[in-house]
Amino acid sequence: MKKNTRMVLALDETDESRALKIADEVADLVDAIKINWPLVLSTSPEMITRLSHLCPVICDFKIADIPNTDRLIVEQVRRRGASGVIVHAFTGSDSLSAAVKAAEDLDVFVVTEMSHPGGREFTAPLAERFAGMAVEAGAAGVIAPATRPESIARVRNIVGDLLILTPGVGAQGGSASDAISMGADHVIVGRSIYGSPMPREAAEKLAKEIRQAAQAL
Amino acid sequence: MKKNTRMVLALDETDESRALKIADEVADLVDAIKINWPLVLSTSPEMITRLSHLCPVICDFKIADIPNTDRLIVEQVRRRGASGVIVHAFTGSDSLSAAVKAAEDLDVFVVTEMSHPGGREFTAPLAERFAGMAVEAGAAGVIAPATRPESIARVRNIVGDLLILTPGVGAQGGSASDAISMGADHVIVGRSIYGSPMPREAAEKLAKEIRQAAQAL
Repeated sequence: MKKNTRMVLALDETDESRALKIADEVADLVDAIKINWPLVLSTSPEMITRLSHLCPVICDFKIADIPNTDRLIVEQVRRRGASGVIVHAFTGSDSLSAAVKAAEDLDVFVVTEMSHPGGREFTAPLAERFAGMAVEAGAAGVIAPATRPESIARVRNIVGDLLILTPGVGAQGGSASDAISMGADHVIVGRSIYGSPMPREAAEKLAKEIRQAAQAL
Repeated sequence: MKKNTRMVLALDETDESRALKIADEVADLVDAIKINWPLVLSTSPEMITRLSHLCPVICDFKIADIPNTDRLIVEQVRRRGASGVIVHAFTGSDSLSAAVKAAEDLDVFVVTEMSHPGGREFTAPLAERFAGMAVEAGAAGVIAPATRPESIARVRNIVGDLLILTPGVGAQGGSASDAISMGADHVIVGRSIYGSPMPREAAEKLAKEIRQAAQAL
């Protein structure tokens, strides 16, 4: 995954034309576009392919199944033209290994903990263990929340030079520059861009903040 | 969810015409057809709608996201015509509540533990807690594995009259009659039916085994 603007757009739109319009508007300002199931279900899996013509696509599918199903999902994601996929570790190391093995040139990112309040119940206490599993399985990187920047630093100690992608910036309260300062490689931004009346201007402003934080490292 | 044959077909096919052919062949022998992401990704979300014209469809999407995304996925599943959806509890009680609230007349089933070896790492020790969360959130039922029938009995003690659906029968080693004897309401069968050269005969044989086990209760 390239590391230019260090920004990933979370395109959590379900309207097809609006999603394509925003993607087109900010594609050159982000290193990847992250999409989730609601967009695929409201349109079709063909959206993965269409968006990947504009920008590398990460399918944030939070895969959490038995090894054979994890493998089948990853194979379909790859066939549709995505560049990365997000997988849960809590369904076990065999499932995670099956996902990484099926990924080939696709980047697999493993969720360490989640950015919402319920993330504290089960995922947060296991975050470091999940980070270790990501390293062991040969994943490309991990997902660690900007809403708890101290956990980014802890996860960095475990994952070495694996990529850290950080959601929770903006609407959820995390700061892009804090996330970069604590060791995140990429900041995932959603509503602050796609929910803005001027998505490109919003993306440019955030890109500047991230660039400054990265220069200060 | 109706309780006639007490059997659910796990239609883990990714070939569209073969999936439709098998569904058509056994629709009257099962109470529901369970589909997973690989079929949706290899075809389109329209498959949910097409299959639901033959038989009630349970989307085994193992949803495991933040509350807002869980809600959006469930809304799309409902819009596509499914009758049920499978959700993980480990992303927290707020995510689970959001899924159940968005479900309306759709049945939400909560995963307690998983049937594969890696399921022992994180989900199995939390199975009873997840079952309790299903009751609290107002889910329609839970998923508990036939590969560990003693856990079905434990889960039954917690969930009262919620439905218990049991995967892991057949190819994964679990027995349909044991699962029913231990308190499962429905047995989920996949490869033993769709992988058979004669799917209808295979389904009829299993339906008979289940009927006998249910009569012996």
